[in-house]
Formats: sequence, C-alpha cells, structure tokens
Amino acid sequence: MKPLDDVCVNTLRFLAVDAVERAKSGHPGMPLGAAPMAYVLWDRFLGHNPQNPAWPNRDRFILSAGHGSALLYALLHLTGYGLPLEELKQFRQWGSMTPGHPEHGLAPGVEVTTGPLGQGFAMGVGMAIAERFLAARFNRPGLSIVDHYTYAIVSDGDLMEGMSSEAASLAGTLGLGKLIYLYDDNGISIEGPTDLTFREDVSLRFAAYGWHVQVVRDGNDVDAVEGAIRAARAEQERPSLIIVHTHIGYGSPKQDMAVSHGEPLGADAARATRQALGWPLEPHFYIPEDALAHLRLALERGSRLEDDWQQLLGAYRTRHPELAREFQEMAGGLLPSGWDASLPVFEVADGPLATRDASGRVMNTLARSLHNLIGGSADLGPSTKTMLKDRPDFSSVCPEGRNLHFGVREHAMAGIVNGMALHGGVIPYGSTFLVFSDYMRPALRFAAMMQTPAIFIFSHDSIALGEDGPTHQPVEHLMSLRAIPGMTVMRPADANEAAACWRLALERRKPVALALTRQKVPVLDYHGYPISTGVGRGAYVLQAPDGRPPDLILIATGSEVHLAIEASLALKDRGIAVQVVSMPSWEIFEEQPDDYRRSVLPPDIPRLAVEAGATIGWYKYVGEKGDVIGLDRFGASAPGEIVYARLGFRCDHVVERAIDLVNRK
Amino acid sequence: MKPLDDVCVNTLRFLAVDAVERAKSGHPGMPLGAAPMAYVLWDRFLGHNPQNPAWPNRDRFILSAGHGSALLYALLHLTGYGLPLEELKQFRQWGSMTPGHPEHGLAPGVEVTTGPLGQGFAMGVGMAIAERFLAARFNRPGLSIVDHYTYAIVSDGDLMEGMSSEAASLAGTLGLGKLIYLYDDNGISIEGPTDLTFREDVSLRFAAYGWHVQVVRDGNDVDAVEGAIRAARAEQERPSLIIVHTHIGYGSPKQDMAVSHGEPLGADAARATRQALGWPLEPHFYIPEDALAHLRLALERGSRLEDDWQQLLGAYRTRHPELAREFQEMAGGLLPSGWDASLPVFEVADGPLATRDASGRVMNTLARSLHNLIGGSADLGPSTKTMLKDRPDFSSVCPEGRNLHFGVREHAMAGIVNGMALHGGVIPYGSTFLVFSDYMRPALRFAAMMQTPAIFIFSHDSIALGEDGPTHQPVEHLMSLRAIPGMTVMRPADANEAAACWRLALERRKPVALALTRQKVPVLDYHGYPISTGVGRGAYVLQAPDGRPPDLILIATGSEVHLAIEASLALKDRGIAVQVVSMPSWEIFEEQPDDYRRSVLPPDIPRLAVEAGATIGWYKYVGEKGDVIGLDRFGASAPGEIVYARLGFRCDHVVERAIDLVNRK
Repeated sequence: MKPLDDVCVNTLRFLAVDAVERAKSGHPGMPLGAAPMAYVLWDRFLGHNPQNPAWPNRDRFILSAGHGSALLYALLHLTGYGLPLEELKQFRQWGSMTPGHPEHGLAPGVEVTTGPLGQGFAMGVGMAIAERFLAARFNRPGLSIVDHYTYAIVSDGDLMEGMSSEAASLAGTLGLGKLIYLYDDNGISIEGPTDLTFREDVSLRFAAYGWHVQVVRDGNDVDAVEGAIRAARAEQERPSLIIVHTHIGYGSPKQDMAVSHGEPLGADAARATRQALGWPLEPHFYIPEDALAHLRLALERGSRLEDDWQQLLGAYRTRHPELAREFQEMAGGLLPSGWDASLPVFEVADGPLATRDASGRVMNTLARSLHNLIGGSADLGPSTKTMLKDRPDFSSVCPEGRNLHFGVREHAMAGIVNGMALHGGVIPYGSTFLVFSDYMRPALRFAAMMQTPAIFIFSHDSIALGEDGPTHQPVEHLMSLRAIPGMTVMRPADANEAAACWRLALERRKPVALALTRQKVPVLDYHGYPISTGVGRGAYVLQAPDGRPPDLILIATGSEVHLAIEASLALKDRGIAVQVVSMPSWEIFEEQPDDYRRSVLPPDIPRLAVEAGATIGWYKYVGEKGDVIGLDRFGASAPGEIVYARLGFRCDHVVERAIDLVNRK
Repeated sequence: MKPLDDVCVNTLRFLAVDAVERAKSGHPGMPLGAAPMAYVLWDRFLGHNPQNPAWPNRDRFILSAGHGSALLYALLHLTGYGLPLEELKQFRQWGSMTPGHPEHGLAPGVEVTTGPLGQGFAMGVGMAIAERFLAARFNRPGLSIVDHYTYAIVSDGDLMEGMSSEAASLAGTLGLGKLIYLYDDNGISIEGPTDLTFREDVSLRFAAYGWHVQVVRDGNDVDAVEGAIRAARAEQERPSLIIVHTHIGYGSPKQDMAVSHGEPLGADAARATRQALGWPLEPHFYIPEDALAHLRLALERGSRLEDDWQQLLGAYRTRHPELAREFQEMAGGLLPSGWDASLPVFEVADGPLATRDASGRVMNTLARSLHNLIGGSADLGPSTKTMLKDRPDFSSVCPEGRNLHFGVREHAMAGIVNGMALHGGVIPYGSTFLVFSDYMRPALRFAAMMQTPAIFIFSHDSIALGEDGPTHQPVEHLMSLRAIPGMTVMRPADANEAAACWRLALERRKPVALALTRQKVPVLDYHGYPISTGVGRGAYVLQAPDGRPPDLILIATGSEVHLAIEASLALKDRGIAVQVVSMPSWEIFEEQPDDYRRSVLPPDIPRLAVEAGATIGWYKYVGEKGDVIGLDRFGASAPGEIVYARLGFRCDHVVERAIDLVNRK
C-alpha cells in the first residue's frame, strides 16, 4: 500500500475505533477489517457529490453490514458530507446523527437504513432495477442521463440470510450488470468461526445464481481490490460479487476473534492496535491533514461529476424536452398533473366486484398516466390482479418493462421495493396474499422506519378466501401490520373505496399496505355515500339514522362493511337505530382532529366492530364495554362463503350481538 | 414402467384430479407430474406403518409443496392410513380431514402442515437433526433404535424461498446424510415459466451448499427415480437433492402450462387427460383392485417393520434398561420425574439481573435433568444467553452435541425447531433478539397452527436495549406475537418470573415465545410475592393496598413491572392506593375463570397499563377510559436507560399519568 493510502485507511479505522471506544458500545471489528475495500471504492470509483447527496445520478452505496456504521460515518465525514466530526464523537448518543446502525434520513449520504442483515443486500438489487428501468426509459444515444452503479459491502450474515439468496437469484436472472457487491469475508460470526454454520462454497453458489464472482485473497491489498472492482465494472451482463478475504479486528489483539465484532476493544487493546498499525496514541479522532486533503478531493470530483451531468441533462433537455420534464418530475417524486383524471369510478351495477379486481383496474388506469408505476408480485400476479396489461415484463432484454416477476420471494420483493423507492424516480409496488405479509415483515418494518413511498398490495385478505385453508387465510395480519409504527394500512370496503385508497397511497408518499378481498363484494353507491372524502379521513359515517342519535355504532372494514349495512337494516326493523362506520384506515383516522373523530364515533353510544381478523386491537375503538365480532382462531378449508358464515360473519350473528350489546347498556 | 406401476401411478393421479374436480378448487398440476416419484418413494422405500402413524422410528415424509395435498391424501388412503375414500371426496370441504393444504393433526400420516413455501423444507432439516441427535444419544452397536430417513418433495417455489436456502446451507454444513429431497422440477410457476425469475443452476447451488445432487431427466421413469433414491440413501455424509424433471399437469391438455397449477382441469380437460393416460372415464375416484392390493402391502410391510423394531427395542431394553426407559419417556414427550427439582430460585440479593441471564441460568440447570433439551441461536448465543455451558456443539462429527448453531438464519431456525418438535423425542428451542422475531414470523405462525411444543426465546425485548438503535429495538413485536392465535407469549418481570415461565413453557407443550430483557432488573422477593402461582395464571396481583379497594390499577409486564412498583409507592405517598398487576402472559390470563380475572382487574377501577411496546392491544384491559403508557413510534440509538427514560418510562411520568387518570374519573 502506498503511504498515503495507508494513512487514509488507518484514519478510517481509528475514527471508527475511537467512536466505538467513546460510546463504550459498537462494532470495531468490521471497520478494522473492511476499511481498505471501503477506501478503494470510495476513493477510486464511487461517483457521488458530497455536497448534494440527492444528485439523482450518483452511484449508490449501501453498507449492508450496518453494524459497521462507524466506518460509514467516517467515510461520510472525510469525503465532505455534512456530518461534522462532532457527530462521530456523539456516536450512539441521544439525538446524534450517528446511531448504532445507519439510519436513512439522519446523516446525509446514508442511502438506506441497515443493520438487520439481508435488507441492504435486497435494497441494492431494487436500486439496480430502478436504475436499469430509468436508463431504458430515458437514455438516448450519447445522452445517458441515468447511468450509475450500485455498490454494497455485505457480510457473512448477509449471505446467510435467506432474503439475500432470494435477491441474488433474482439479480442473476435479471442480469443486473451494474450491481457490485464486496463481500467482507472475515470468517468470523458472533458465535465463532463461520465454519460452525456456513461451510458452503459462496463462490460456487453465486456462480450458480449467474453472478460474476472474483476473489481477493488479501483484503489489505488495495490494488487487488481496485483491480477486482474494475473488472466488475467491466462486466455488463452479470451482477458482481467480489469476495474479499479480510481479518475482523485487523491489527488488534482481538484480530480474527468473535469478541472484536460487537464490543469496544477497550483502552488497552485500542492502544495496542494503534501501536500495531503505526498510529499515534494521541489524539483520539485524529485525522492527518494529508488524509483529509486527499479524501476531500471527493468534493471537487463530485462537483465536477454533477456539473458534467447537468450539462448532459441540458443537452438532453434541448433534444428531448418532454422526456426531460418527465425525468425531473419523476426524480423529484412528483405526480404529473392530471394523473388521476381518469381514475375509474364504479357504479353499483359494476358489482359485485372483488376489491382486488377493482384495484387491478385502478392500477391499469393509473399505469397510463404514471409511466414510472412499476412492480409485480411474488408469483401470484394472476391472483393479486397486479399485472399491468399489455405492458412488457421487466427483464434483462427488456429493461423498459414494467411488470416485475419476483418469483416466490416475498421478503426480497419487499426489500427490492424499498430499494426502488429509495432510489427514486419510480413508484414501486409489490404484491402477494395478505397471509404472506409475514414473510416480508422485516422489510415492511424497514419501509415504515424509512417512510419509503412503497406500495404493498395484499389480496386474499380474510378467511373468505376459502378452500386454500388456514395456511393461506390471514387472521392476525391486519392487526400486526397496524401495530407497526408509520405503516398505513388500508382495507377498502368496495371498488370505490379501493380507488380512493389508491389515490391516497400515491399522494401520501409513505409506505402503504392495501388489503383486498379475493371474493366479490357489492359496489357502494358513491352518489349516496361520501366515499372519496370519507376514505381520505380514514373512517367515516356511511349511514346514520334520520334525525335521531343512534342506539348503536357498527364499525367495520373491508368486506365486513357490507355485513354491517345489512345488519343495520335488520336492526332498524327491530327499532334499533344504527350508525354504520366504514373504517378503511386506522392510521389516517388517528390523524384527524378530535371533533371529527367524535362525530364518527360519538362517545357513550355502544359500539360493535366487525372485522374478519384478530380482535386484539379493536377495544381501542369499541371500549371495554363494546363488543367485537372478529376471529381469534385460525380459519378452515372450505368454500369461502361457508367459512365466513360458520365463523360468525353472518347477518343474524351481527344482529344478535348488536341486540345483546344495546340491551346490556 | 411396468403395467402395475403405471396403474398405481395413474390411480394416484386421478384420485387427485377427481378430488380437485369435485371440490371445484385445488391444484391438479403437481400431482399429475409428481405422482411417479411419490409412488416410487412410498412403494419402494418409505419405512412406515400406516396402522401406527406415531411409530417413533418411521421414515418422515414431508410434502413441502403442500398445494399437492390431494396427492398426499391419495397416498395415505391407498397405503392404508385411517383416511377413508369418503374424505377424499370431501376434499376442501368444511369439517373434512382433507383441507386444501395438508394440516398436521387432521388426517393421520400428515407429518407437518405445509402450503406456504419453504416451511416443509426447513422442518425436514429439523427432523433430520432430531433423528441424528437421538441416534447418537441412544444407539448402541447392533442396536440402532433410532435409524430413519427424512424425505420431502419440494417445488420450485420452495427453492426460491430464502428460508430453504438458509436451511439447505445449514444442512450441508451439518452433513445430514439421511435427508433426501426430491425436487419436482416442472419448470412452471404461477406467473409462467420459471425462467422468468429463476434461471439459477440449482444443481450447482446445492453442490455449493455441500449437498449430493442427482438429476433424473424423466420424472415418469420410475426406475430412474428408484436408482437415484437408492444412491441418495447410500450417501451418508451429505444431504441429497434429486432433481426430477417433470411435467406439470402431465397428460392433460394443460400440460406444462401455468394454468394447470391452481385450478381444476375442468370436466373436458379431465376427460381428455383420462383418455391420454388410458384411464377409464368412469367411475370417478376409481381405484383398480390390483393397485389397491399392491399399495396396501404397505400395511403388512409396516407391521413387520414395526414388529422388528419392537423386538430390537426389547433387546435394547434388556441391555440398556435405563436408556430404554429414557428413550420411551422422551419419545412420549414426557418430562422425567423430578425434572424441576433444582429449578433455581433467586434472592433479592442476586439482583439486579437481566431476565435473559436468569433464563440462561434456568436453562443450564434444566439441561442437567432434561437430556433432550437442545437448541441454540441465530448467531446471537452470547447475547441471548442460551448456550448450554460445558456441553458440546451439535455438528457432523459430534451429533450428540446439544448446542445448535443456526447461523444468521432466523427463519430456518424457527422452521427447524418446529421440525424437531414434530419429530418428537427432543425439546427444542431457538433464540434471537425480539426484533428479529419478524424474520421468523411465518414459521412462528406454523408453530401456533400445529401447536408444536417449541420454545422461542427472544431477548433484548424493548427499547431499553439501547445503543443498537431502532433497527434492533422491538416496538410492535409483543403485540404482534400476541395476535397470533395459539401462541403463548410470556414476558417475565424478573428472574423468578423467568424461572416460572420456563416451567410453564415445558409443561404446556405448546409453542411459547419468551421475551427477556437485555438490561438488569431487580429480583422480586418471592417470599413476599406469589410469583410462581401468579405466573401460572398469566397475571396476578403483586401488590394490593391494605384493607381498602384501590384507586387505580397499574398493569405492567416485564421490566415495566418495576416501574409500576416504584410508581405505586410514589402514588401511595400522595394518597392514591394502587393495585399493581404483573401480567407476564395475556394468553394464560385469558384461560382463567372469570372470577379470578375480575379479582385481578376489578371492574370500574381506573387502569393504567405500562409496557415498552405498541399500545394497540392494551385497551382490552384498560378500557376506553383507561390509559396506556407504551410506545407507538420507533426507538432511538442511545444508552438504554436514556432511551427508556426519554420515551416515557420514568416513575414521574407514570405518576403523572396515573394522577390524571384518577382525577379524570
């Protein structure tokens, strides 16, 4: 290593070590081992502009091994991002920009939140898909305004996680040539040598996925790493994995030991490491001037890169003004004017219609005005109705295609959708059955944490799906999704509510989970019901008794709204006046002012909720003295209408429980 | 194919086709393609006794491609299990033994529930681990009382799921030579040819995992399948994958088409298939006598197999009476007498002590009396404290080891634990951080559906884990786990509650999720508090005001119980009498009689719940007019006590909210 390279690498290493030491908490082992590859990548290849972390054509960098966050913070600080050294000194402290694992939205330049393994790996695949799609849509000969790489540093743990296998297999199938992952192969996991659990031949495995695989035998050999990255960039057809052999805790007395992974070295070992690597014992957080000067060249390079690109964009705008306008709109996350002009409205006579079908029709309409609406399903497209008709599939030979086929890979799908959303420029969606949202849950949580504008479409949203049985029938899923902070769950009652939910999903630019029926349900008469504004408030009064306060409030979501309406009529015949509330989204309802909420759910009137799912959360709205018709058991295999009725979702049952409740009062 | 083989295979095929046709719902494509391999396996290899599906030494068979359930039901009926033909005619109907996807506990001989892909694959690995462990523990020269294979038929979708990659990599590392999977490689997924999403070289991939891989080019060639299974059985060191090329919907007009996967062929196509395969058009559910006679030979073979084994067991009992007694106890799922005699009790002076540490001590004590307590962690053993000290690791060279290393593979871990539990003979556990229960969720749901006696240990159970930050801090997880029907969630408040939870977990023989603190908490004085009986009732009064009804009930779980106690003292000083309720398990509390529940939570007294997690479900216990101090946002990275306090888990905050609540009333 040249002396200056060495100094730069050690600067990275010891900023990380010192941050961990000061915090008395953190992961020094990974930065010590992986600093050289990170340095080479950032110094010699990464196309980015630290002054504008939002530059659309930047290379994306993901630290999938998010526990090495201190290394990332050091890189960001040294290359000139708006992350002061003071923040590194506040590593893992309340209110700092430098949390224990990188969080998108805190320090500028942190592309994605990472930490839980596999997520970064999959999100990178999503970014590479977005790049490829946008490049195919926008680039013109000599005018490649979308042209960047997606890099990641991944760990043993990332490669053990199933999510990465899913994403890697898909990336290979799609031939994502601009995806380059460096695998920090240090042979150590928390419980000991990776041999304990991970004897597989990673090189062979990735070759099997269709990746271009290289091995760098000495992770401290920066020129070897450089050569490998260069070869990876030259490979156009296949994603690249560069297996870099490193030493966890390099240079420390704990080198190659699991104990260097997740706790501070301690003062003595930190000192010994400084001595071993020829680093001054004092001061801590030491940044040699020549290292800083060298790494800060990123600012100048970055400026120039973005300037060049702006010139290119200018030339592009001259030649393709309409496309340029569209590109900037998409890159800015804006919806084109009139995007919703032809959103379908459904007449009663269009019904009965499953909300999954209504959603499919809405999507296909939207796809005409939203040219960057792109997504697909985990091999259930014909059932989730999320295929964009008459549009090609996205593939290695057709990167302008808008139908993604994720395969039976729900978790990677959600991670990829997150990555696409974070890349920007596209409006991504993923779909499967509601019950399989379980497979996606860590990535759904990530969507909620990062507030990615990602749309998750879950059809077959209750036991009413029928014959496939309890393994396919969601029960606890609506409630479990609602429990995730920041996730907006929407369960439309009919086709018109479904259209309104889609509008909201697109306007909110936050993660949304849409729950849709498999079975047909009536279409509500939008002339008589305030559906569109009502859905926009999360819950609304669908029917109120004439000129008198209600005896009972029936709250329902999705398909159960129709049961509530039916029961309200039967109750009216018995002299019980019912207010029927449709509540497609708890989260949006909670955002409304108190007086609105009180108008929908006036206090001191008995309330009965009906939803074909776990009751656990409903007491918030019905109170301890209210009642819930729900489902706290698994479903059963039989025709849907039989399962539904047998498990209590019948008009007579609702009426009976309603009368009980009113009498109890 | 010999004529009789052909008849048998077609009998399987058309029983499946007819079941699907009659149900007007189901999956005919897989049975038509995979019937030959299933026939060969069941007819020529599978060691089982249809008259005793619980025979401990039977070979295990898993239809991981659970959508092919009709094929399994046909096999079970034809080989003489207690599954009448009438039940096949009731396929997918309410109350039948033949649901859309196989459900463990309905038809005899269904080893595991399957359907959601990947689950069966991972459970098979768990069964093979259990077999290997028990064989190592019990077998003696010439007396191999545990000696069976684990077979599965897996599909494209199984192999796409990340969970299978995790399980396969671990199975390769562990060298599970008696695991044999047949891959029904039909080239078709729901959205079209598997090439759309799955171009990987499966053979190479499994070789990379360390599997023995064979390819059968013609899945209708029963002798080729037989040869491959024979070779797989001969391979002792590596798990085997047999890639069998088949045709989905074989013989039908929809052969090799996605449409044959998940819907009935329809009367015309069913008739055409009969004609193509030379099958009588009538009657439906036709079983030729020679086919039945041949397949029912399984009864005689099975009887003989089990008789031989009983003789072997007799000889074993003579030579090793103590081991034989232990084997039968374990195989019967019984706990040895005195198993809990030395369960630790913790004195106040032992504290403060994290409940994860207490749990670790309890486990290490239990490991001495429970010789089949076996499990581990997804690479977080040093943190979850689940290592059994001074006991070897389970590995290919040490199959008697009791510490499993799952690697960073939470989902496979949960599936493997389920498989071990279903195999029987062992008491399995798996552990990770509570936040990562998300990665395991589909398998946790499976545990709940099947009521497997599996123990899931989740440490780091709140934001109080501190610096690792929001990516590692659970928020919605307790509530999400409680929402799963049939899952028992336990969150002990201290070391003694932790010990009591362990006792319950072992006695209930149902799936349990234990949530444990990272941080130290005081030890409650078991002399003063009715901890052991209290935990057994799910919730109990820890402190009640002397001789007067309380003004307020404070309900808490886990670490927040100490906060509740502290607040109750401060409130007492202000003249507010508080009843403090510790509520380690909602599910167990719900099982108690009404009068007990009313004594713990007397009506009409204001209630305040305190739990460092999502509030969504708590209104059930506090009522609409009660209050909850919880967390409906993500956490933050900072030292644990700071995060905890800043987010509201402080005595003064509890006191303030308590006073508000009492005043409101």
